Amino acid sequence: MPRRIITLTTDFGTADHFTGVLKGVILGIAPAAAIVDITHDVRAYEISEGAFVIAQAYRYFPKRTIHVVVVDPGVGTARRPILVEAAGQFFIAPDNGVLAMVYGREKAKVREITAEKYFLKPVSRTFHGRDIFAPTAAHLAMGATPASFGKAIDDYLKITLDKPDRTGKRAWTGAILKIDRFGNLITNFHIEDFPDLRTRPFEISVGLRKITRLALTYAESEDQAPFSIVGSSGFIEIACNRASAAGLLGCGVGAPVDVMLY
Amino acid sequence: MPRRIITLTTDFGTADHFTGVLKGVILGIAPAAAIVDITHDVRAYEISEGAFVIAQAYRYFPKRTIHVVVVDPGVGTARRPILVEAAGQFFIAPDNGVLAMVYGREKAKVREITAEKYFLKPVSRTFHGRDIFAPTAAHLAMGATPASFGKAIDDYLKITLDKPDRTGKRAWTGAILKIDRFGNLITNFHIEDFPDLRTRPFEISVGLRKITRLALTYAESEDQAPFSIVGSSGFIEIACNRASAAGLLGCGVGAPVDVMLY
Amino acid sequence: MPRRIITLTTDFGTADHFTGVLKGVILGIAPAAAIVDITHDVRAYEISEGAFVIAQAYRYFPKRTIHVVVVDPGVGTARRPILVEAAGQFFIAPDNGVLAMVYGREKAKVREITAEKYFLKPVSRTFHGRDIFAPTAAHLAMGATPASFGKAIDDYLKITLDKPDRTGKRAWTGAILKIDRFGNLITNFHIEDFPDLRTRPFEISVGLRKITRLALTYAESEDQAPFSIVGSSGFIEIACNRASAAGLLGCGVGAPVDVMLY
Repeated sequence: MPRRIITLTTDFGTADHFTGVLKGVILGIAPAAAIVDITHDVRAYEISEGAFVIAQAYRYFPKRTIHVVVVDPGVGTARRPILVEAAGQFFIAPDNGVLAMVYGREKAKVREITAEKYFLKPVSRTFHGRDIFAPTAAHLAMGATPASFGKAIDDYLKITLDKPDRTGKRAWTGAILKIDRFGNLITNFHIEDFPDLRTRPFEISVGLRKITRLALTYAESEDQAPFSIVGSSGFIEIACNRASAAGLLGCGVGAPVDVMLY
Repeated sequence: MPRRIITLTTDFGTADHFTGVLKGVILGIAPAAAIVDITHDVRAYEISEGAFVIAQAYRYFPKRTIHVVVVDPGVGTARRPILVEAAGQFFIAPDNGVLAMVYGREKAKVREITAEKYFLKPVSRTFHGRDIFAPTAAHLAMGATPASFGKAIDDYLKITLDKPDRTGKRAWTGAILKIDRFGNLITNFHIEDFPDLRTRPFEISVGLRKITRLALTYAESEDQAPFSIVGSSGFIEIACNRASAAGLLGCGVGAPVDVMLY
Repeated sequence: MPRRIITLTTDFGTADHFTGVLKGVILGIAPAAAIVDITHDVRAYEISEGAFVIAQAYRYFPKRTIHVVVVDPGVGTARRPILVEAAGQFFIAPDNGVLAMVYGREKAKVREITAEKYFLKPVSRTFHGRDIFAPTAAHLAMGATPASFGKAIDDYLKITLDKPDRTGKRAWTGAILKIDRFGNLITNFHIEDFPDLRTRPFEISVGLRKITRLALTYAESEDQAPFSIVGSSGFIEIACNRASAAGLLGCGVGAPVDVMLY
């Protein structure tokens, strides 16, 4: 049996015992699992940010990887834990939209996790990462079938995070999905949906700035004027050479982005 | 031989080469070890915070796990390195109280680490994590017996971090042990020692606030008024729904917490 | 075949999907690799800081370890990707000086990475960590020979980061290389090059302070006056007992350090 990979994406931060506990629970059940941290620094409670990060990362992992995604402000309430099969991989998360950008790209089979025999007991009201999500992942890694965790459901939470709205014949309004480490503003305009940005004049309005240039590399600009660029995930980003576009433009996640094509 | 797990809990942060060096030393001696980061973000020199984190995490790891805990402001001075057997697991740390909350829960056998043959030489005065603690862990993982590292001792540092003082017939004064990522204030009142908090009226005083409500989930509150809740470790926490109780109450680690039961 | 170790040193931070993507790409090609994070918190674009961190860490890893170092402000421009053999280990990085302190210590064989068959395609202009460096490391771990990645070159970027300039008969001017987690100022004076610091009176000038004392341990000082100490890497550090020398002296990376020997 090849070593199973279990990834972790959470808003737990790294200064507490929470991520260590997840890893201990997993290794107690699946001692040979390879645990991979994607990030624990999703901003606290920010489901859409967690949705973005896991959607950018999962595609690069091999088939049968198990992704545990815990951004879970509703822990202990009626929201359901789910196990999702998509793209030959597995996702374990609360049913609160944190997998929305995976559903947007892949055919997904979604199950509600109800098989309490796999849970760590007593199940707390405050830490389902430890009591439900981590042990589910570990038992799945050890060979339990997806069906053994619960029944397929259709009424899971579907929300659309990553599509701009059309506001005119050649005008759209979108939003900033994420600000990355370098201060680049990642918008929800994907180059596959807007290929004309490569070939036609355009104007992107963010904050008080209007941007009309599409750069090929971050370093090609001589000054610090912001430009647009196709980021590594395919989304249009607003960036500056060796400086933070977020700082320069004063914009945050959720800020509107208007695109006009000429 | 099953793969041995070695966990790391330090105040080294993650921006320097220190944690990479620990991992290199371990893998040079024990190439098949599974290294697990619990945290490197204990606040610098804060022994009691390190003590809290490891005490919350170790219980979830399998038997024979080796925990390396390095919060060591006295590195290079006379404080001793120790190897502790407790709960079927191993702990390697300076004898400065950082394992106090493990002793408080488990029968512990404590040895002073003196077997210099296992050390990385020359032993520096500034980085015993690299020169003593990591190689001890790795050699233990490779099968060296605990006794081969040094003699059992009884005069290791015993301090009590996690028990409130009784100040009246139904009154206690404790303290805030830790502020977690979400701003929840983790007190040193454990629900097992104070089961009446579940069933009787009470008043908890923290900062300028008085709290009389015990919630079951973080999300059940409609507003941002602080409430108490039994945290995932069993300690009473002061929390707010989707907001930082630490910010709202202006309290930090060590701040007093008064509990009155009616 | 023993498990190959692949380490990661980047300025990607840990809040984005970037490091998760690197790990996914590596595990997709080399499923049994042991991935070790050295740090992802090199300050954005700071090549000299990345150079310092990897130079302090690699020596502790076993032979045949593969180090991926991505601090790459020029991604997508003409700077070349390189594969370096030194000290029985491998280094994969952009040719921008980030390996300069490795060359300074070890005999190095440097190759330009040109074998596109190993790249993730299409190769982006913005994320060579994913498209070139990670897959090169993984294929190397799987047994591809160094020569299969490209031809040896001699004109790689050689810069000197870690040597002070002599400014008088017994006077030198150096610089602060790095500020560590504890606020210690790591200078580029190495004790092996300046052994007289152990035995002769000296004066080190940093900021507005003059330091004349060499301590043996961080904790030996009674007050918070700054002192010098031989750090765990052999470089002279300016430190304070349980306080940040960087904060006290108001100095940052690159600030001058003058040493006078008497």
